[in-house]
Amino acid sequence: MEKQQLTDEQLKQYLPDLPKGPLDIYRKKASFDWRRMKLVYDNLNTLKLKHDIWSFMESHPLFKHTEATRVLDDERNITTKRMYTIYNEQFLRFEKIAEDPKSFQAESEAMFMFDSSLAVKVSLTFRMFSNAIQGNGRDHHFHIIEDVEKAKIGGCFALTEVSHGSNAKGMRTTATYIPEKRQFVMHSADFEAAKCWVGSLGKCATHAIVYAMLISKGKNHGLHTFVVPIRDPKTLKPYPGVIVGDLGEKIGLNGVDNGFVMFNNYHLPKEAALDKLGGVDENGDYKTPFRDPSKRFGAALGILSGGRVHITAISTYYLQKAIVIAIRYSAVRKQFGPENATEEMPVLEYQQQQIRLLPYLAATYAMKIFSVWLSFTHINMTISNFMGEDNNAAARGIELHALSSAVKPLFGWTSRDGIQNCREACGGHGYLKAAAIGDLRNDNDANCTYEGENSLLLQQTSNWLLNVWARRSTITASDSPLGSLQFLENVDQLLKTKCPWNSVAEFLEPTNLILTYKWLTAFMLKMTAEKVAKLKSEGKDNFSAKNDSQSFNAVTLSVVYGENYVLNHFYKSALEYEDVSCRNVLLKLVSLYGAFLLEKHMATLYIGGYLTGSQGSYLRDAVLRSCSLLTPEAVSLVDSLAPPDFCLKSVLGMSDGEAYKHIQDSVMTYPGSMTRPEWWRDVVYWQSYAPSKL
Amino acid sequence: MEKQQLTDEQLKQYLPDLPKGPLDIYRKKASFDWRRMKLVYDNLNTLKLKHDIWSFMESHPLFKHTEATRVLDDERNITTKRMYTIYNEQFLRFEKIAEDPKSFQAESEAMFMFDSSLAVKVSLTFRMFSNAIQGNGRDHHFHIIEDVEKAKIGGCFALTEVSHGSNAKGMRTTATYIPEKRQFVMHSADFEAAKCWVGSLGKCATHAIVYAMLISKGKNHGLHTFVVPIRDPKTLKPYPGVIVGDLGEKIGLNGVDNGFVMFNNYHLPKEAALDKLGGVDENGDYKTPFRDPSKRFGAALGILSGGRVHITAISTYYLQKAIVIAIRYSAVRKQFGPENATEEMPVLEYQQQQIRLLPYLAATYAMKIFSVWLSFTHINMTISNFMGEDNNAAARGIELHALSSAVKPLFGWTSRDGIQNCREACGGHGYLKAAAIGDLRNDNDANCTYEGENSLLLQQTSNWLLNVWARRSTITASDSPLGSLQFLENVDQLLKTKCPWNSVAEFLEPTNLILTYKWLTAFMLKMTAEKVAKLKSEGKDNFSAKNDSQSFNAVTLSVVYGENYVLNHFYKSALEYEDVSCRNVLLKLVSLYGAFLLEKHMATLYIGGYLTGSQGSYLRDAVLRSCSLLTPEAVSLVDSLAPPDFCLKSVLGMSDGEAYKHIQDSVMTYPGSMTRPEWWRDVVYWQSYAPSKL
Ligand SMILES: Cc1cc2nc3c(=O)[nH]c(=O)nc-3n(C[C@H](O)[C@H](O)[C@H](O)COP(=O)(O)OP(=O)(O)OC[C@H]3O[C@@H](n4cnc5c(N)ncnc54)[C@H](O)[C@@H]3O)c2cc1C
Ligand SMILES: Cc1cc2nc3c(=O)[nH]c(=O)nc-3n(C[C@H](O)[C@H](O)[C@H](O)COP(=O)(O)OP(=O)(O)OC[C@H]3O[C@@H](n4cnc5c(N)ncnc54)[C@H](O)[C@@H]3O)c2cc1C
Repeated sequence: MEKQQLTDEQLKQYLPDLPKGPLDIYRKKASFDWRRMKLVYDNLNTLKLKHDIWSFMESHPLFKHTEATRVLDDERNITTKRMYTIYNEQFLRFEKIAEDPKSFQAESEAMFMFDSSLAVKVSLTFRMFSNAIQGNGRDHHFHIIEDVEKAKIGGCFALTEVSHGSNAKGMRTTATYIPEKRQFVMHSADFEAAKCWVGSLGKCATHAIVYAMLISKGKNHGLHTFVVPIRDPKTLKPYPGVIVGDLGEKIGLNGVDNGFVMFNNYHLPKEAALDKLGGVDENGDYKTPFRDPSKRFGAALGILSGGRVHITAISTYYLQKAIVIAIRYSAVRKQFGPENATEEMPVLEYQQQQIRLLPYLAATYAMKIFSVWLSFTHINMTISNFMGEDNNAAARGIELHALSSAVKPLFGWTSRDGIQNCREACGGHGYLKAAAIGDLRNDNDANCTYEGENSLLLQQTSNWLLNVWARRSTITASDSPLGSLQFLENVDQLLKTKCPWNSVAEFLEPTNLILTYKWLTAFMLKMTAEKVAKLKSEGKDNFSAKNDSQSFNAVTLSVVYGENYVLNHFYKSALEYEDVSCRNVLLKLVSLYGAFLLEKHMATLYIGGYLTGSQGSYLRDAVLRSCSLLTPEAVSLVDSLAPPDFCLKSVLGMSDGEAYKHIQDSVMTYPGSMTRPEWWRDVVYWQSYAPSKL
Repeated sequence: MEKQQLTDEQLKQYLPDLPKGPLDIYRKKASFDWRRMKLVYDNLNTLKLKHDIWSFMESHPLFKHTEATRVLDDERNITTKRMYTIYNEQFLRFEKIAEDPKSFQAESEAMFMFDSSLAVKVSLTFRMFSNAIQGNGRDHHFHIIEDVEKAKIGGCFALTEVSHGSNAKGMRTTATYIPEKRQFVMHSADFEAAKCWVGSLGKCATHAIVYAMLISKGKNHGLHTFVVPIRDPKTLKPYPGVIVGDLGEKIGLNGVDNGFVMFNNYHLPKEAALDKLGGVDENGDYKTPFRDPSKRFGAALGILSGGRVHITAISTYYLQKAIVIAIRYSAVRKQFGPENATEEMPVLEYQQQQIRLLPYLAATYAMKIFSVWLSFTHINMTISNFMGEDNNAAARGIELHALSSAVKPLFGWTSRDGIQNCREACGGHGYLKAAAIGDLRNDNDANCTYEGENSLLLQQTSNWLLNVWARRSTITASDSPLGSLQFLENVDQLLKTKCPWNSVAEFLEPTNLILTYKWLTAFMLKMTAEKVAKLKSEGKDNFSAKNDSQSFNAVTLSVVYGENYVLNHFYKSALEYEDVSCRNVLLKLVSLYGAFLLEKHMATLYIGGYLTGSQGSYLRDAVLRSCSLLTPEAVSLVDSLAPPDFCLKSVLGMSDGEAYKHIQDSVMTYPGSMTRPEWWRDVVYWQSYAPSKL
C-alpha cells in the first residue's frame, strides 16, 4: 500500500540512473520498471538506510577496495577497523528496528553486499553476544550489554568444541560450582574440549558466551551458558587461566578471526552464569523455572533460531551478487552466431546458458522476498513474545523453528549451486579473482555448515513433520500459524489424485505447479513416515530407524517442505503486488521457479504415481519455455537486485556493462602485473639452484 | 598378468605400512589388501616412479610445506623454482614413455598430488609447447624443442583472446605476411584482441605458440600457429613490440602465472610460422596439404585433444585427494550415538553421510581406472599414428575426440560435486584451509572451463552422435574402434524393451545396470535427434535447431554417453581383475557407481517408459544398500588411493587418523596464532580513528 504512493522521484533519489552502455539493448527490452520492482521487498525506509550506509562507505578511505588479497593479519586488521567505524555511525539504532522490522535486514544487506567478513564481525561482536545475554541473563547481567553497546568490550559466542559440534549434549567444557567461594571453575580437560570456531575470538573478543556443563555437588546439570571474560579490554591480553588463539586461515570469511579457547581451572564469579532459565543457587542447589529439563535445554538453544533466520538472508545476498554478475556479463559476452551474421550472439541467448542462470534468477527473487519476510516475522515474533502479546506464541515458535531449519539449508544449497553455475557460465574470465564469484562461493560455503550442519538441521524439521503426521487428523490451523502445514489439508484425498495436465502451458500455470508441490510434500511425508514405521516393525530402535531413513526420505522431505512454503509465499507475494507490469514478470518467475524445482523431483513424482507416461517432458519444456520468456527481462531483473558497483567489485558485473574495459583496468593496475619479477634470475639462471644433469 | 607376479615384498617396498591408530578399526574390517588394489591401475614401474618423485620432494627443502598462504608473487616464485628443480631431475625421460605409456600418468599424478600449480607449470612450459611444435612444425623448428628440453627457453600456449575463447574462429590477432621482408607482422588491434589466460606467460615464458589469422595478399586464411619470442631468455625482458603482463589473482592455481600479451606490429621471420599443415610460401601464396581447408583447421585444433585427456586425469587426482580426506575423517569423527551407548558413532555410519561420500568413492575408482586407460590409449595412438601403424587411425581419432569431449566435462563435474560433498561432510573443520579441501575445489574449478568450456565441449560429442544416429543402420565395429557406439547394437529393438526388475537385488546386479545404461544412452540419442528434427521441421535453421536442443537433450546425451562408456569400462576392468577379494569389492563399487548414476537420470527412464510404477524406488534402495555394504571397505579403499601424507597436507586426512592432534599442531603453530595482534590498539582505542558519537 505504502508502495503505490512512492513517486518516481522518490525512488530515483536512492536509485540513480544506471550508466548507458552495452547493456542498454537488454534494458530496453524489459517490460517493467526495475526501480519499482525493488518495492516487492524494499520500502522507502530500507532504500534510504542502505543508501546512507553505502554513501558513507563509498566516501570513507577505510572502505576503499584494493586489488590484491591482503595477508591474513592485514585482512583482520582492516575488517576490525571497518567494524568499529561502521558501528560507530549507528545507522540503525535499536528503537528503529521495532518501528520498521525490515530495516534490520536492510542494514545487514548493506553490510554483506560490501563485505561479508565485516558484516559477520559486526553481528558476532555486538548482536549475537547481546542477544544471548538478553535471552538467558538476568537484570544484573544487563550492564554487560551496555558495555557492548558502547563498544567498551567485544563479544563472541562459544558453543562448538573441537570434538563436538552438532552433538551439543556431548560437550565437555565444565563449570563446577564451589559454594564456599561463590565461584565457578571453568575447565577444558584437553584440546578436544577446547571451544573452537568461535568468530571474533581469535584476535579481538574480550568476552565470550560459553556453553559448559554445569556441575554442582557432583552432579552434571547439562549445558548452561556463562559470560566469560577472555581478554583484558585495556590491553587485549588474555587473562591467566585462559589459553586463547586463532584458527588460522579458512576457506573464506578470512576477515573474521575464528578462534579457540581452553580454560585451565579458570575461576568465575557466580554472576557469570546466565541463569534465567536455570542454574544453581548460592548453595549449589539446582533451580529452574522449567519442570522438564529437556525444555530448558530446548529454550537455551532456541536462541539460535535467529541465527538461522539470518543465514537464510545471508545466502540470498551471495546469490544475489553472483547472479547480477553472471547475467550482466552473459548479456555483453558474445560468442558464435548464426551462419552469415555480422555480429556474434550474446551468450545469454543460448538455451544452455539460460538454463544455468535463469532458474537461479527466479530463485533469487523467491529467496529475497521470502528472507525479508522471514526476518520481519521473526522480529515481530520476538517483540510480541517480549510483550506477551501473542496468544499462540508456542505454536508459532515451533513452526518457525521447523521452517527455518528447512529453509536455512535449502537456501545455503541453492546459493551454492547457483553461484557455481554463475562461475562456470562466465567462462575463463569468471575464474579471475576480480570477477568476484569465487569469493562468494567460498563465503557461502560456511552457510552450509554453521548454525547447524545442513543435513542435520533438516532432520530437526523432519522429526517435527513426522510427529505432525502421526496426529494429522487432529491438526488445526492453530497448529500452523505460519501456514506451513496447509499441504495436509485433505491429504488422504490429495494423495489419491493424479496429474491431469498434458501440455507445456498447463505446466507453466503457477496454480498447477503449486498443487503439484502440495501433492509432493504430502507424498514425501507419507513415504518417510512409512519407511520409519517399516524399519521399526523390522525391529530397529528409534535411533536406527531414523538414521536409516535419512536419505531420499527425511532429508528430502524437509527440503521439499521448505520449497513448498517458499514457492507458495512467492506466488502470493507476486499475486498481491500492485504494479501490473512488475506483477506479470513476477508471475513468470514463479512459474520458472516452480517448474525448475519440480523438475528436480520428477522421479519422485513418477514413483508416487502422480506423473505417468511422458508427462514429465512437458515439465521440462515448461522450464525451457519460461527461461526463454524471461530472457528479455533478465538484465532489468538483476539491475533491480544489484548493489552499487563499488560493492559488487566485479570486473564482469558492473552496471555499465563494460566488462572488457574493467578487465583491462584491473589487470593493468594489478600491483606488479607489467613488471619483470624481482626473482627473474630464478628463471634465467635456474641452474644456480638446480645444477644441470643433462 | 604382470600383476599376479608381484610379491607382497615388492609392493611393500613402495607402499610402506600405514601408521597404527584410530583408523585401524575400519582397516581390520576390510575384506581385501589395499596394496594389491592399487594394481588395478598401477604397476611396479609406476609405483616406483611415483615413489622416487615423492621421496625426492620429501627430502628437498624447496618442497617443504608452509602453513600460511604465500603472497601471490612468492607463490609464483616458489612454483617456478620447484618446476626447474623437478624438471632437472628428469624422472621420466621421453623414451621411457614409449616403453611404458602408463608412466606418463604416474609422473603427472606424482606432481599433481603434491601441488597442482607445479604440475600445470611443468606441463605448460615444457610439454604443451613442444607438442604444438611437434604437431604443426617442420624440421627447421625442431631446434626450438631442443632448447625447451634443455630449459634454455620456456614455452606457453596462446589461443584464447580477451573477447574470444570458445569461438576460436572469431579471433582477431593477425599475422600479415610481407614477402619483401620474408616476415610476418603480428598485431593485436586492441585489448579485446589481446591473447589472455596464457599459463606461464604472466612472468616466465620466453616463447609462445600464438594462434593468429594468417593474412597474405589481402586474404585472411584463418587461424594458424606461430612460435613467437616474447622475452629475452637472458634478461626476461619483453622484446619491443610485445606488451605482456600478468592476469593477477585467480580463484585457484595461483602458482601459475597466467598472462596476456598484445603485439604492436611485431615483426617475425617467416620461419615463425608452424606451417606443416598449411601456410604461405616465400611469395605469400597459400599452400596446404589439405584439399578442404576446414580439415586443416580441425587438424590444427586436434592437437588439443591431448589436453582433454590430461584433464580427465587431473579431475580424478583432485577428487582422489578429497575423498581420502573426507572418508578418513568420517571414520574418526564421532558424533551422537544410540541411547545408552558409552561411545558415540563414527559419522561414517550414518546413512546420509554414506550417501554423500560413498558414491563418489565408487566414482573415483571408476574415474581412476578409466583415466589411466585413456591416457595409455592416447599415447599408444599417438605413437602408432607417428609410426603409421594404425590402419583405422581416422576412426579411432574421431571417436577419441568425441569420447574425451564427453568425459572431460563429466569428470570435471563429478569432481566438482564430489569435492563439495567432501567439504560439507567434514563439517566445521572441513572449512579450515588446513583441511585442504577448499583448495582442491578451487583448483578443480578450472577443469570445467579450460580446454573447452564443459557445456560447449559436450556439444562436440553430441554433434558427432547425431551424425552417427542418422547413419546408424550402416554403422559397423570399425566406426567405433573404442567401442563407444556399442549401445547402438540392435538399437530399435532395445528401445522397445522395458525394465523387467522389481527388487533391490536386481538393481544391484552390474549387468542389469549396464543394460539399463545402454537403453538410456540410446534413448537420449533418439530423443535429441527427434528434437532437432522437429525444430528443423518447424522452420529453424541448423544453428537455431542445435541451440534450442541443448538442454535436457544434447548436453545430457553426451554426459550419458560418457557415463555409459566409463561404467562399462569399470565393469570390464573389475571383472578381469585377478585378485578375487579385490575383484569382489570392485564389483560392489561398480554396482554403486551404476545405481548412483542411474538414479540421477531416473526421470528420463520414466519419461521414456523404461521404468513404470514404483520401480524407481528399488533403484534408490540399491544405492543405499551398496553404500552400507561398502562402508566397512571404505577406509582401505581410500588408503589404496591416498598419496603420502606430505602430499595430502590435510589435518583431517592423515593416514594415522589423528585428526585432532593435527588440528592442534596446525593451529598452535600457525604464525601469530597465539599472540596479541600488533594492531591491538585498533581494538582498544578504536575511538582514535572513529570518534564516538554515542
Ligand atoms: C566459518 C564458521 C564459523 C563458525 N562460527 C562459530 C561460532 O561463532 N561459535 C560456535 O560455537 N561455533 C561456530 N562454528 C561451528 C559450527 O557451528 C559447527 O561447525 C557446525 O555446527 C557443524 O558442527 P560440526 O563441525 O560438529 O559438524 P559434524 O557434526 O562433525 O559434521 C560432520 C559430518 O557428520 C555428519 N553427521 C553428524 N551427525 C550425524 C547424524 N546423526 N546423522 C547423519 N549425519 C551426521 C554431518 O552431517 C556432517 O556431514 C563455526 C563454523 C564455521 C565453519
Ligand atoms: C585457469 C585457466 C587457464 C587457462 N590457460 C589457458 C592457456 O594456457 N592458453 C589459452 O589459450 N587459454 C587458456 N585458458 C582459456 C580457456 O581455454 C578458455 O577460457 C575456455 O576455453 C573457455 O572459453 P571462454 O572463456 O571464451 O568462455 P565463453 O565462450 O565466453 O563462455 C561463457 C559462457 O558462454 C557459454 N557459451 C558460449 N557459446 C555458447 C554456445 N554456442 N551455446 C551455449 N553456450 C555458449 C559457455 O558455455 C559459458 O557458459 C585458461 C583458462 C583458465 C580459467
